[in-house]
Amino acid sequence: MSIWLEESHTPGYRVLWKINEILWREQTKYQELMVVDTLEFGRALVLDGAVQTTERDEFIYHEMISHVALNSHPNPRQVLIIGGGDGGTLREVLRHPGIERVDMVEIDQRVVELSKQYLPTIASGFDDPRAHVHFEDGVRFVKESKKRYDLIIVDSSDPVGPAVELFGLDFYRDAFGVLTADGIMVAQAESPIYYKAYLQKVWRNIKSTFPIGYVYLASIPTYVSGFWSFVIGSKCHDPRSVRGDKPSLFGLKYYTEEVHRASFVIPPFVLGVLDEA
Amino acid sequence: MSIWLEESHTPGYRVLWKINEILWREQTKYQELMVVDTLEFGRALVLDGAVQTTERDEFIYHEMISHVALNSHPNPRQVLIIGGGDGGTLREVLRHPGIERVDMVEIDQRVVELSKQYLPTIASGFDDPRAHVHFEDGVRFVKESKKRYDLIIVDSSDPVGPAVELFGLDFYRDAFGVLTADGIMVAQAESPIYYKAYLQKVWRNIKSTFPIGYVYLASIPTYVSGFWSFVIGSKCHDPRSVRGDKPSLFGLKYYTEEVHRASFVIPPFVLGVLDEA
Repeated sequence: MSIWLEESHTPGYRVLWKINEILWREQTKYQELMVVDTLEFGRALVLDGAVQTTERDEFIYHEMISHVALNSHPNPRQVLIIGGGDGGTLREVLRHPGIERVDMVEIDQRVVELSKQYLPTIASGFDDPRAHVHFEDGVRFVKESKKRYDLIIVDSSDPVGPAVELFGLDFYRDAFGVLTADGIMVAQAESPIYYKAYLQKVWRNIKSTFPIGYVYLASIPTYVSGFWSFVIGSKCHDPRSVRGDKPSLFGLKYYTEEVHRASFVIPPFVLGVLDEA
Repeated sequence: MSIWLEESHTPGYRVLWKINEILWREQTKYQELMVVDTLEFGRALVLDGAVQTTERDEFIYHEMISHVALNSHPNPRQVLIIGGGDGGTLREVLRHPGIERVDMVEIDQRVVELSKQYLPTIASGFDDPRAHVHFEDGVRFVKESKKRYDLIIVDSSDPVGPAVELFGLDFYRDAFGVLTADGIMVAQAESPIYYKAYLQKVWRNIKSTFPIGYVYLASIPTYVSGFWSFVIGSKCHDPRSVRGDKPSLFGLKYYTEEVHRASFVIPPFVLGVLDEA
């Protein structure tokens, strides 16, 4: 017998993952949540049928959504993560010894609970005293926040279901207001091949909100097409290079300072996607 | 009704492509050959069940297997392509005005014939007077060649079926002998995620044959994991940067001089794969 998880991306492209076992499956208040043990990618978190993260290659996404912004800012101390319920982004942010406090706002408490239970190598930062988790709507949290942050990381799921508003312009404007005078915001922005309209939307949001905006890329096998984009907005620091005297981060598997710089090199066809935005 | 082409990569991972039509299907002397019209990636060439190239993203692979080596060499004039029956690599090589002659050695004449018929935008270089196509075994061609080449491009299919020997050390030694004193050789080297043993094999071959060897990467949605490697060996020129006064190449969609340099930035986990080789 064999069990396959079918992930349907677009009308014409699907991926099949062979799984050893379905470890958990429930309908939460917000989405269908599954944790599966795959044959080749270790355990995977699946939300509304889309694979969010796998033990085997989660490091690429989590390192790249965190360290580029953290190392572009000379001294980030207060960080806000929107989404990121599996804890991988939190784990990466906490590697930086200068971090004083991380607020993480995840709408779905069950994602955090089940990640702690089934994905402990990813969800390893929740017990850190600097980590503060809020089970709330990220859009409202940002709108109402009185605190100011050096860095906001938008680690959202795809722009269907609970994450839709995180791709809206209002959210970007509110995020700008919550950042310190030299703050930086970064968001995952989907595949420029399969979901180019979303990249274009996030790119328009950043460009109309921040004085400095760039796109950078990473190659993430788990996500459809592998070719993944991030959009970064900054009030004054140029995010394309590493700032200040950064501590060496040991144990990273994808991010280096050279990878940081190279990730901002954008092929012409992706520039074309951005120009159309 | 819907028809899906299932591509089986490893025991635990498959991809499904929705197709409008099977345009051609035959068992050639060497392999099962199909041309299909996909819903989202245009027409695709499929050999022994593996998608070789699609109209939508073929430019990434073909630009990156060609222009990195061509622009690392100050003045390449004589080029040998091994494999590459769809013609995409030939098309890219011929963009360089300094090229005097390209010998292309494809074992399976039917790949060229059907690419000309069904994939004319890829197979657009065959009528160029500088192009000379030989329907022979590339391993034997290189072993017996009296001609010398500035550049050898190994545009092979996966190391199963007719391409197996193109991954062998003997072939690399013979190729070294056929290159001019400042010659360069480049080969596609599979995915460092799904096929790391092949990358390791090609890397060992290049390192034990050439004084200068590097790996570079590109992000190719059509190929499993997207994360694709190339291995380049050089007798004296450093392939990591563009040499001499290169003509501007118009109409490229992935390759630029910046992309060239950035493609040699290798994440630590891939360096780990190479170190194990």
